[in-house]
Amino acid sequence: MTNLGATQVARDDAQGDGVKLVGSDATHDGRGRFDLLFEPSARKVRVPPGVMLFDAASWNGIAIDSTCGGHGTCRKCKVQVLDGVAPITNLDTRAFSTEELRSGWRLACRVEVSSDLRVEVPELVTRPKAATVGVGRKVILRPAVQKRYVEMTEPSLIDQRTDLERLFAMLDDLELRAELHVLRSLGRTLRANDFHVTAVIVDDVLIDVEPGDTTERIFGIAFDLGTTTVVATLLNLNTGMPVAVQSMLNKQQPFGADVITRISAIMMDRNKLEKLTELAHGALDELAHGVCEEGGVLPSEVYEVAIAGNATMTHIALGIDPEPLGVAPFIMSTKLFPEVLAADVGVRVHERARAVMFPSFGAYVGGDIVAGLLASGMDRDSRMRLFLDIGTNCELVLGNSDRLLATAAPAGPAFEGAAIRCGMRAAAGAIEVVKLSVDDVSLGVIDDAEPMGLCGSGLVDAVAELVQLKLLDPSGRFVDDDRAIELAPGIGNRLTQLGKERVFVLHWRGDVGDVAESIYLSQRDVRELQFAKAAIATGWQILFEEAGLKTEDLQQVLLAGSFGSYLSPASAVRIGLVPKLPVLRIVSAGNVAGEGAKMALLSLRERAGAMALLDEVEYVELSDRPDFNDRFVDQLAFPD
Amino acid sequence: MTNLGATQVARDDAQGDGVKLVGSDATHDGRGRFDLLFEPSARKVRVPPGVMLFDAASWNGIAIDSTCGGHGTCRKCKVQVLDGVAPITNLDTRAFSTEELRSGWRLACRVEVSSDLRVEVPELVTRPKAATVGVGRKVILRPAVQKRYVEMTEPSLIDQRTDLERLFAMLDDLELRAELHVLRSLGRTLRANDFHVTAVIVDDVLIDVEPGDTTERIFGIAFDLGTTTVVATLLNLNTGMPVAVQSMLNKQQPFGADVITRISAIMMDRNKLEKLTELAHGALDELAHGVCEEGGVLPSEVYEVAIAGNATMTHIALGIDPEPLGVAPFIMSTKLFPEVLAADVGVRVHERARAVMFPSFGAYVGGDIVAGLLASGMDRDSRMRLFLDIGTNCELVLGNSDRLLATAAPAGPAFEGAAIRCGMRAAAGAIEVVKLSVDDVSLGVIDDAEPMGLCGSGLVDAVAELVQLKLLDPSGRFVDDDRAIELAPGIGNRLTQLGKERVFVLHWRGDVGDVAESIYLSQRDVRELQFAKAAIATGWQILFEEAGLKTEDLQQVLLAGSFGSYLSPASAVRIGLVPKLPVLRIVSAGNVAGEGAKMALLSLRERAGAMALLDEVEYVELSDRPDFNDRFVDQLAFPD
Repeated sequence: MTNLGATQVARDDAQGDGVKLVGSDATHDGRGRFDLLFEPSARKVRVPPGVMLFDAASWNGIAIDSTCGGHGTCRKCKVQVLDGVAPITNLDTRAFSTEELRSGWRLACRVEVSSDLRVEVPELVTRPKAATVGVGRKVILRPAVQKRYVEMTEPSLIDQRTDLERLFAMLDDLELRAELHVLRSLGRTLRANDFHVTAVIVDDVLIDVEPGDTTERIFGIAFDLGTTTVVATLLNLNTGMPVAVQSMLNKQQPFGADVITRISAIMMDRNKLEKLTELAHGALDELAHGVCEEGGVLPSEVYEVAIAGNATMTHIALGIDPEPLGVAPFIMSTKLFPEVLAADVGVRVHERARAVMFPSFGAYVGGDIVAGLLASGMDRDSRMRLFLDIGTNCELVLGNSDRLLATAAPAGPAFEGAAIRCGMRAAAGAIEVVKLSVDDVSLGVIDDAEPMGLCGSGLVDAVAELVQLKLLDPSGRFVDDDRAIELAPGIGNRLTQLGKERVFVLHWRGDVGDVAESIYLSQRDVRELQFAKAAIATGWQILFEEAGLKTEDLQQVLLAGSFGSYLSPASAVRIGLVPKLPVLRIVSAGNVAGEGAKMALLSLRERAGAMALLDEVEYVELSDRPDFNDRFVDQLAFPD
Repeated sequence: MTNLGATQVARDDAQGDGVKLVGSDATHDGRGRFDLLFEPSARKVRVPPGVMLFDAASWNGIAIDSTCGGHGTCRKCKVQVLDGVAPITNLDTRAFSTEELRSGWRLACRVEVSSDLRVEVPELVTRPKAATVGVGRKVILRPAVQKRYVEMTEPSLIDQRTDLERLFAMLDDLELRAELHVLRSLGRTLRANDFHVTAVIVDDVLIDVEPGDTTERIFGIAFDLGTTTVVATLLNLNTGMPVAVQSMLNKQQPFGADVITRISAIMMDRNKLEKLTELAHGALDELAHGVCEEGGVLPSEVYEVAIAGNATMTHIALGIDPEPLGVAPFIMSTKLFPEVLAADVGVRVHERARAVMFPSFGAYVGGDIVAGLLASGMDRDSRMRLFLDIGTNCELVLGNSDRLLATAAPAGPAFEGAAIRCGMRAAAGAIEVVKLSVDDVSLGVIDDAEPMGLCGSGLVDAVAELVQLKLLDPSGRFVDDDRAIELAPGIGNRLTQLGKERVFVLHWRGDVGDVAESIYLSQRDVRELQFAKAAIATGWQILFEEAGLKTEDLQQVLLAGSFGSYLSPASAVRIGLVPKLPVLRIVSAGNVAGEGAKMALLSLRERAGAMALLDEVEYVELSDRPDFNDRFVDQLAFPD
């Protein structure tokens, strides 16, 4: 299978009657997880029921031999179950003698965990290739795409095997099926090349047969399909190395800056769905051809793409009606997307290339977050961490390898510079850093240009500095003019009046004193930011409560996405956007969605890991909580 | 899976290490078959290794409960293995308690036969619907297509399951996957119909969700895709009854009467493949729409089609290059065809309807023969039978439920009326019956029209009658004029001369005595028929030898196809076209290819049975036998 959806581990009733064949009873820890103890390393990991033993080991860095990546075809992932329940599968009966089966030998990729297990892992025979991606994650290369060069004997009257049987006999460690597309030209390709060809395989599907030896050329493209920006990374799947990266604004921008506006456009006019789908396809395809050209790679040498996007972007890219995502009770058509071709999402690379679509937790915690969690290793790290992806909608995930809780908070557009009087996108001329002292204003401007407005990180800085100087009181009100001069003699006069509203001038664009022409922060802007940060703080506060934790238990805050890269950790703490923590523990994780997409392309195991996350993460819905509004109001104030 | 290819039973190394869990040792009968004894009926059947127990029972008329048709989803096919080896599968552990597993309880559809077994089959709870098709075969209705009407509760903030999860929860006896196509409109369809919809399922794939309750409307079309004629039967899959039947000449006729000519056309000009594929699609689609209109069925209510055709017709219909089929060593691209849509073979019915393509034994024993064997029950009948499908190419299968041998013989075009001086197709005006006595000629003409020529069955009759009267000697030479008058005083003068050639006049079209204008049989025509019948007789003679049988062991000859319907059994015996047998034992089986296609549509079990045939039938290649020519020459003479 090519798709994340298809790699789902069966778990519907894995806790049903198990056959007790070796050792101890099936036990539970009350949260439905089992302990796995790997020998001889003595590594212990805890997994939900239904996870395959092979995957559980791989995700936790315990290497088990395999050439098929856990597909049950290479029969190399032999392990010995010393204690616990591991029913014998049909495949086991082919891989082991009766004696070996009695001693607990099993294929790790067929063992569905349904009890605590103690497992002996034989030493690795081969040293696998690996690449570093994500947040310092080392990924063992095992892409879904593989190529095999074969030299076959030609058919004769005494060897009348079909062309496909002849080819498959050379690939008998795999259990393949061929696509009609391949069969249409197989006979001709074999005969035109003396039966010396390269088989192109994605998962268990033969998608092409190429003349001669083309094994050196295997590429994939990882996409981060953001509401605002789309990023494509061309990867060499033989080495794991990126070949080229390009990005562009999402072509859907004219239909609204955020997902709700775009869904509304479709609700108003159903023909808009087709248009938006077309625009998504256009962006993906243009980037695909851009990175191929830049990297000197033919589009036909790209055999798989992975796409991480939020639920709305993914629905629209697949042409799935997103309307129910936009109105309560916020329902997705599906969490897991069916097997699709790159062509189905408009990407014209190899005509049978697959597209891996990241699944979504919920309408507002989408595939980008699944990819982000994968890249940041949230589910495999014992540290208690808070993952924050701040945008119009803010996604929050709290937890560690034991348990993960997620939610979404409607932050509104303040962080994008929208609904702010002098707000603007984080582009040239945007004030992104603000430092205030009692007698000076110091600004950092993108591209060192003449200041034109205030972007999200500048907004947070400005408010945080004003709170620090007490020019804003804890409730978010500007102090009066006299008090301002008293508190900050050199800059107090910048706190003034524009019409009926109090404003603080950050930069005189025209004459000093011409407030209307200046770049300023208004009382209403402060309120907008308060609403945004209160929504987010309410979100993580509820997650902490649900997890039975205090904010002091937190060890790290991971800020995902580009906003996270520019946000000042100190300012974020000061306004209460993130829990109080030493600033060094608040780290920018970068474009984790794109990194997750790369990981999925490089490794079937990581891809399965993303699927497993769907079951590991508990989603906490905020919109139906009766206490949400009270908590929200409580969070409007700035911390003392 | 939808395709015959995909229902292949795994058998690569089913004879490997089995886990002995209950009773006796795995035993073999030397030909790799196992004995199954079903209790309480005490029915005994012999099957090749790797067959699924459920299928083995079904094919032999032993009914086991099931609603999913052997897909491992309904968990109803519970049987108790009393003796023999039946490893426990993952599914068994979910269906049974540990105690039941110890007592040998298994799901019959998961038991791959790898030893002799004694099996207790519980009494049926439900009485399944059945239809009579094929050669008196009773088929239990279990089509791949099913519909389920469901009424779902609507989503809410406390029940945020995705639309697909909500739907699948109503169908939790099945393990389904949904197609992208369905997801694109699922949200809208559910909401426009108060969540009351009908799920359309083919195998394990949800292909559509229809508004309201449409369960009464499920149709399929069975095609016999012949080189000459294409026949379509519209079937009601709820009742098993045919709704409409239509046929037409294969639109590829202008490119040659037989497969070799058509392949040659493609070899000369590769663009012809596309043209021939288009013509095949055109015929199939035109018939599909014809039967739908006749039957009052919307094309969108047809969810599956089955196509039985020879290897060349099937390759071309799928757009697969047939060139290697046309030249030694006669290689197919594949025996098993991949999962395809009806749209892939040009049939515009439901846009996600599946097309089941019958697999082929070999380049010249194709899917039409697989379908024919299925319909005639060759593999389940203990009588020793010879199956003959006579055309330009003649396919022969000899055997019974114990063993089946197949081969193909190049008969040439004589039986189609081609290469015969006064030959013609079996159409209005063709002499199809010839009776001779010493003083009279009596002719049967199609449509009682004025005779215009001689078709295949008339040719066989004419020669047989002349042999009977000794006007043709055993070597196939006409006797001289004097001897002719002596042997048959009333008609001897019809044996005369046309130019340099001896001819026998069957019908005076112009003046009596005007031989050139008459319908006659020439010495060369007799030679053509001798070549054709010798090729066929050599074929079955070699099959008898390979099987270690004598022709006396034969109990029945089955003549498949339309030629078989018109051929006089007595004449066929007299010229040695078939082994010497009482004429009542030589029976016309009719359009068995079409019947097989119907069976595949009506029953997943029969479909699996067709797949099993691929492994049960041993193919005997004639073209590489050094003794073929000598044997062929020996067979040229007529039996004494």
